[in-house]
Amino acid sequence: MSVLPTDSLETPRFCGVPTFMRLPMATDLSQLDAAIIGLPSDSGAPFRTGARFGPNAVRAMSTMLRPINPYRNDINVFDTLRCADAGDAPVVPGYEEECLARIEQAVYALSSAGVVPCGIGGDHSITLAELRAVAKVHGPLALVQFDSHSDTWDKYFADKRYSAGTPFRRAVEEDIVDPAYSIQVGLRGSLFRTSDITQSLDLGYEVFTTDQMFELGIKQMAQRIAERTAGRPTFITFDMDFVDPAFAPGVQTPEAGGPSAREALLLLRALKGINMVGCDVTEISPMYDGPGQITSLLGATVMAELLALLASERAV
Amino acid sequence: MSVLPTDSLETPRFCGVPTFMRLPMATDLSQLDAAIIGLPSDSGAPFRTGARFGPNAVRAMSTMLRPINPYRNDINVFDTLRCADAGDAPVVPGYEEECLARIEQAVYALSSAGVVPCGIGGDHSITLAELRAVAKVHGPLALVQFDSHSDTWDKYFADKRYSAGTPFRRAVEEDIVDPAYSIQVGLRGSLFRTSDITQSLDLGYEVFTTDQMFELGIKQMAQRIAERTAGRPTFITFDMDFVDPAFAPGVQTPEAGGPSAREALLLLRALKGINMVGCDVTEISPMYDGPGQITSLLGATVMAELLALLASERAV
Amino acid sequence: MSVLPTDSLETPRFCGVPTFMRLPMATDLSQLDAAIIGLPSDSGAPFRTGARFGPNAVRAMSTMLRPINPYRNDINVFDTLRCADAGDAPVVPGYEEECLARIEQAVYALSSAGVVPCGIGGDHSITLAELRAVAKVHGPLALVQFDSHSDTWDKYFADKRYSAGTPFRRAVEEDIVDPAYSIQVGLRGSLFRTSDITQSLDLGYEVFTTDQMFELGIKQMAQRIAERTAGRPTFITFDMDFVDPAFAPGVQTPEAGGPSAREALLLLRALKGINMVGCDVTEISPMYDGPGQITSLLGATVMAELLALLASERAV
Amino acid sequence: MSVLPTDSLETPRFCGVPTFMRLPMATDLSQLDAAIIGLPSDSGAPFRTGARFGPNAVRAMSTMLRPINPYRNDINVFDTLRCADAGDAPVVPGYEEECLARIEQAVYALSSAGVVPCGIGGDHSITLAELRAVAKVHGPLALVQFDSHSDTWDKYFADKRYSAGTPFRRAVEEDIVDPAYSIQVGLRGSLFRTSDITQSLDLGYEVFTTDQMFELGIKQMAQRIAERTAGRPTFITFDMDFVDPAFAPGVQTPEAGGPSAREALLLLRALKGINMVGCDVTEISPMYDGPGQITSLLGATVMAELLALLASERAV
Amino acid sequence: MSVLPTDSLETPRFCGVPTFMRLPMATDLSQLDAAIIGLPSDSGAPFRTGARFGPNAVRAMSTMLRPINPYRNDINVFDTLRCADAGDAPVVPGYEEECLARIEQAVYALSSAGVVPCGIGGDHSITLAELRAVAKVHGPLALVQFDSHSDTWDKYFADKRYSAGTPFRRAVEEDIVDPAYSIQVGLRGSLFRTSDITQSLDLGYEVFTTDQMFELGIKQMAQRIAERTAGRPTFITFDMDFVDPAFAPGVQTPEAGGPSAREALLLLRALKGINMVGCDVTEISPMYDGPGQITSLLGATVMAELLALLASERAV
Amino acid sequence: MSVLPTDSLETPRFCGVPTFMRLPMATDLSQLDAAIIGLPSDSGAPFRTGARFGPNAVRAMSTMLRPINPYRNDINVFDTLRCADAGDAPVVPGYEEECLARIEQAVYALSSAGVVPCGIGGDHSITLAELRAVAKVHGPLALVQFDSHSDTWDKYFADKRYSAGTPFRRAVEEDIVDPAYSIQVGLRGSLFRTSDITQSLDLGYEVFTTDQMFELGIKQMAQRIAERTAGRPTFITFDMDFVDPAFAPGVQTPEAGGPSAREALLLLRALKGINMVGCDVTEISPMYDGPGQITSLLGATVMAELLALLASERAV
Repeated sequence: MSVLPTDSLETPRFCGVPTFMRLPMATDLSQLDAAIIGLPSDSGAPFRTGARFGPNAVRAMSTMLRPINPYRNDINVFDTLRCADAGDAPVVPGYEEECLARIEQAVYALSSAGVVPCGIGGDHSITLAELRAVAKVHGPLALVQFDSHSDTWDKYFADKRYSAGTPFRRAVEEDIVDPAYSIQVGLRGSLFRTSDITQSLDLGYEVFTTDQMFELGIKQMAQRIAERTAGRPTFITFDMDFVDPAFAPGVQTPEAGGPSAREALLLLRALKGINMVGCDVTEISPMYDGPGQITSLLGATVMAELLALLASERAV
Repeated sequence: MSVLPTDSLETPRFCGVPTFMRLPMATDLSQLDAAIIGLPSDSGAPFRTGARFGPNAVRAMSTMLRPINPYRNDINVFDTLRCADAGDAPVVPGYEEECLARIEQAVYALSSAGVVPCGIGGDHSITLAELRAVAKVHGPLALVQFDSHSDTWDKYFADKRYSAGTPFRRAVEEDIVDPAYSIQVGLRGSLFRTSDITQSLDLGYEVFTTDQMFELGIKQMAQRIAERTAGRPTFITFDMDFVDPAFAPGVQTPEAGGPSAREALLLLRALKGINMVGCDVTEISPMYDGPGQITSLLGATVMAELLALLASERAV
Repeated sequence: MSVLPTDSLETPRFCGVPTFMRLPMATDLSQLDAAIIGLPSDSGAPFRTGARFGPNAVRAMSTMLRPINPYRNDINVFDTLRCADAGDAPVVPGYEEECLARIEQAVYALSSAGVVPCGIGGDHSITLAELRAVAKVHGPLALVQFDSHSDTWDKYFADKRYSAGTPFRRAVEEDIVDPAYSIQVGLRGSLFRTSDITQSLDLGYEVFTTDQMFELGIKQMAQRIAERTAGRPTFITFDMDFVDPAFAPGVQTPEAGGPSAREALLLLRALKGINMVGCDVTEISPMYDGPGQITSLLGATVMAELLALLASERAV
Repeated sequence: MSVLPTDSLETPRFCGVPTFMRLPMATDLSQLDAAIIGLPSDSGAPFRTGARFGPNAVRAMSTMLRPINPYRNDINVFDTLRCADAGDAPVVPGYEEECLARIEQAVYALSSAGVVPCGIGGDHSITLAELRAVAKVHGPLALVQFDSHSDTWDKYFADKRYSAGTPFRRAVEEDIVDPAYSIQVGLRGSLFRTSDITQSLDLGYEVFTTDQMFELGIKQMAQRIAERTAGRPTFITFDMDFVDPAFAPGVQTPEAGGPSAREALLLLRALKGINMVGCDVTEISPMYDGPGQITSLLGATVMAELLALLASERAV
Repeated sequence: MSVLPTDSLETPRFCGVPTFMRLPMATDLSQLDAAIIGLPSDSGAPFRTGARFGPNAVRAMSTMLRPINPYRNDINVFDTLRCADAGDAPVVPGYEEECLARIEQAVYALSSAGVVPCGIGGDHSITLAELRAVAKVHGPLALVQFDSHSDTWDKYFADKRYSAGTPFRRAVEEDIVDPAYSIQVGLRGSLFRTSDITQSLDLGYEVFTTDQMFELGIKQMAQRIAERTAGRPTFITFDMDFVDPAFAPGVQTPEAGGPSAREALLLLRALKGINMVGCDVTEISPMYDGPGQITSLLGATVMAELLALLASERAV
Repeated sequence: MSVLPTDSLETPRFCGVPTFMRLPMATDLSQLDAAIIGLPSDSGAPFRTGARFGPNAVRAMSTMLRPINPYRNDINVFDTLRCADAGDAPVVPGYEEECLARIEQAVYALSSAGVVPCGIGGDHSITLAELRAVAKVHGPLALVQFDSHSDTWDKYFADKRYSAGTPFRRAVEEDIVDPAYSIQVGLRGSLFRTSDITQSLDLGYEVFTTDQMFELGIKQMAQRIAERTAGRPTFITFDMDFVDPAFAPGVQTPEAGGPSAREALLLLRALKGINMVGCDVTEISPMYDGPGQITSLLGATVMAELLALLASERAV
């Protein structure tokens, strides 16, 4: 079965309705190893909104990417993995809990068919829905979270329990993430309460701030992440505010002083030995991205690296 | 009591934290005739979002306006009306019904104190909340709606009853708007169903499409509006997509082919004999507005004209 | 066969990879009456470029449109016409003549299958390729051209015969347009040579400048256009610079002082009795369009009106 | 002497450092009838700034214009008038009075050499400096001012007498404008004081608001303007905020509700019998203009029409 | 006395007129330790302008910041310091010297009341005015200047002594800065004259170029700065062009090749033992900042770090 | 002969039509050592276009640069080199091969007159034309290419041999570059084929990926480059996508994960002992650059460093 992307040496990248990396649209899930799925919800966004337009913005920029990954032995990702673009989950804007339900349903359709769901957000609350779906198939998951914020607060405005600021507390409470195998990397910036970081530790997560990550070293960080997950079924979530706003201006809650795109990619490219059963890239708000759309390009590149990680582990 | 705005011949408009037209912040409601209130909710937005940033964008551009209205006998609006900026209603993003509840509460605080609430949105669902609050004080209201869409659909995604597409059906159902004294002006563009326009008529509204308005004539339209309201307590709601997208690119659901800003202002300036007990300007999404921020400027101008209408009626 | 668009009351418009008006992608041409085809070439652009991104920008904004046209007796366009989105012609950027060849081939595939090709450009040179394809099926065509420039110059830089400035001279020379049944509407602005307008007359076109159109009256203009085409197989080409730059800033060669979007739409909606066998909307360069993307929205609306014209004529 | 612009059918408009309409740079004033001069000062701007970048922005967009004007009998402006681009006056940003002195000096160099100075601003205070220079040569001038604001206030912040809000009071006081032959057209919008409009009348100007202009009719307005100037040496100043912000978003103090670009151009094209000895286009702030740069294009078109008026009068 | 900011876990950050970090507006200076004051002057700007809109742009983005600083022992800045937003100094645009006088007066009102003034600019000439005000209270000051340019030129256009290019020469001449305790950090880029850097040394400043700073090491640089100030009353001025334009595109005179935001924040967070009696962040021109407004966010973060330094020193 | 740029301490940078670094326009080539030449072609661009506006965008930002280079012993570049701005090559948009011919001709006019051509692009295919011109004078050239892509593919769309993706294969085939003395630095990102990098090695180039460059060290990289060129006549080409998109968002084919501007400038400033006979900076598409225009500023700075390298080698 041919699931190769359109060849950009033959047909210009601007030709055709853009799917992720110019992959075909998914038709038969039973034929797939992994699928891109857009999760265009921003109902959980506490500040900037517009991430509902994130999936299509990432698709548009992903046409610039090519199938072979030189950082993983020149693997041709789409020779190794049968991939497709599964379109978007239909969400219910303005109704956060219904959004989560719809996303869970769409992701479960993939996961339960043996397809690794690769989500493109969407505010970070979408990850809770993905975790629910994937954990239903794989049991409590190891979580690898790249993020400048912990997103483990208990409640937000009007004591609401579901928002982009709470998913990784909920996930522990719901037993869909096992914090003992989970790690948060990249926290930084000013805090609401002194407990902003300790609350993650109290939940059982391992936590590395941006500064701690640099002290440890990027390659060592990659190794530490793999060790933490210990071979368990793992979900990797990448909040685009992990990098500095210069590299990702188009995010919901930018936090000054982060790593560069090169540093972030070095980290992802150094990941090995992770049993990834799901992943996402979140919080891209293209309206804040400027005409160059560099946030969407980086987001697409991050997702391509996660696919390459998956391909590479499968190829072993 | 002095409630005059900062004088822009003395202090440059860019100095100071911008309130609406440089009015003072409200402190004592009992001293006020009217108050600007920001209603920064976009949880009801079915397509583009970002109207949560509308109120402050309108405030920023409103500093360009001056207190005297030459279209209503050189009335000094703020000599006649005691006005202030009452800040924003605290909303709960992602929870449409809670947003409506918070807005109703904030608007009721004004209306019940005898202060005419002048809302700046926010997506158009906010108007339902305002109508609830104002009708609690004044009884079923006459509604004057300037809009390119009827917003009288029954349900939206997942059969949700509350969204920017449904408020003026709900308002009739809730008996807070009396359609027999109400009118919708400016409908245009393609339709979901053939019933998109008749559904408003079926509810009892009088309806003028954009084309019908031009056939009638702008001054005649103003007169017809006043006649329809028949002196009843009236709420005027102005959806910025009433005008053509060239004049208001920064809206949620732009509809090509509308009147110009000049035509819209002529219409507002010709309104007379309306017993306005509340009003709003809605659907400004500043991220879509371009660097000139002309949508916010026009929105501020529309609100200034509504204040002048109120001042002028009070001055009679 | 179901070729209805996705219902935007059920699934938000931002969900899914955007096709034109959320139509399905074309699979079987024999089942279609009309098809949208992107013609993403800007190799003929003498000044601003970027129209290669026009088709997808128009698709993205076309999701705001709805299937029923109230200006033509509430016709449901997609009940009447079986439509689909046929994707894009693969072009060869930087090689104008090869671009024209590729476009001709893609359009001929539609036209020869009895499908009315509805092109979205792309610079105006694409229309020559479309005319070649459609004339191969229907013989010399009547041309209705809405444009602020005649595009009947003989040569451009380095005596090149193919460019966005020359297609409608070439079309007469190639006998694929019959100027005796053809008309150019909307010319205006300063001239290179005094012959800029007379050269069209010399070729046999009827010509109305913007001023002449307003003197005649918009409804009369529509009637005059229909009369000129005299029931012949007609191609309608709409260069977005027909309207004023305020309504279409995102074009290749904006010309100040044009009609409004409302005036342009009134004209299109008044067209009757035209035997349209092909059409296009051209010269949209989304990079120049501002965040509101009003040029793309208007371009999509123009195309929707052309589809409604077709549906309406077929329904008779 | 060849002073023809670069031919845009031969060399693409984007080639070369852009001068106004691709004219040569001025070298010998004695060979010229008229010269474009940039007046890049925004030290008089009370609100938005950035008009210092106006002249080069207008030059960049003016490359789209062509030498022949079909609205004045197909006159080739540059066959009739020997024109050049005289570069910019060197200003002293942050020192309003020195800016005026520098501008006066630069304009006087042209005017005293018999060259009609055609200024591109710059905030509106530059016109005072131009009037000083031109009146030194021609005596008190008739002034034709297209503007949404009168700019006849007495003082601004800290009682400063020189700013973009005061030039046309100063000009009367300095006897360089004779108000009995002068006219202000286009005033509109809210007022600081009830005297905002009467202050112009008190100074002796004739004043037409935007509404009054439309009541009179555009052609009649053009005739009235010519009558008012009565053949006297006349300076025409065009503040870009004369038109609606949709047509000129990139201005210093946009005022909602103005005429369209087409209406403004109709008015300019109808002007006849004016003895123009100087002119300018002012208040273009390109940072507020959006990527389409339509304000600069319109500003360039306005200047081209003023040049055509001059050529046309000279050709008689 | 409660001077705590609005809690962004309770009320969304987009609600309410934005003050710096959502602090209350200052009412009683005697109750304050420090106050934010906007200094919206760009009359000293030699190239790009628009910094008059800097203070409100910084306020808008500062709502993203939280009160607790994890880089200084989790200090709650607003528990330690009583802070408020003191609004803006009323300036006189176009009159550089009057601007400086107005700013001096406004800053002196704070400084003389024992309140540490924390200025948000505004072009860099504002710092001269601040230094005059603060030195009147504390005597000649130690100056810590983060900047890619020395701003110690003698004169600018037309031999003007006051501009954004001259304040730190004037400050030495006026004996309000003691260069023996002062240091400039971050100089880089091409030079007007070979004396551009030596002129600072000749005045007595210690100077570190960007390259020298990296050679020394960031922590060592912080230590060297503290040593240089030697406990004297110190003013810290941070020109946003200190960082690379990728991290701060919205500045007046960007200089390619600077440190990253992370490096700049590391430096500020490492500062200890400084007796800060005033500070500012300058040269933010939001019009050049792109939709993500990352320059304003970084500027707000820099100011928050300076407040944390102050809180931390006070807490000792 | 005076070829000094306008002094930006005397005349503001925004005054005057912007030439590169405010140099005079070239009049007599025999008086020049080096000349800037705009090569405004984007007909070779496979994805994003608009580089035809690159030269003027770079000129506009280059006014911020100053003549003295502190990284090369405070050399005054324009005292050492007689430089001018030679305007643009007239290109033929849409006709790639004619564009190359026109560019070759314009560059040859410089090179054959002993003037070092310093090109500003333009898509990267322009470099083939420059190499042809310069090799005609100097014989096969050493090439130093800073680029994230090798641009050594054989063919692009429709088997076209000339495009921005092929110049450095063609140059070897045409014997105008001697790969044995040539080096490509900065390659990174995903690949079309596994041969994307080896194809350059197969052609004889030395290749350093971005990662390899960092492993070697920047100063060592500079030394290695000089060694590779071995004193041969060398052409240096700098594709702006060499740096990370955060530092150069306004490029044709951004590639996430590159070096910073500071790292790139360190590399250029460390180059020594290179016999540079031509150079260019390419692939700047200003429409994608955001309002800060940081890509154009960096491009101008890169060119200024190349001029300083030339001046410095000549001064030896």
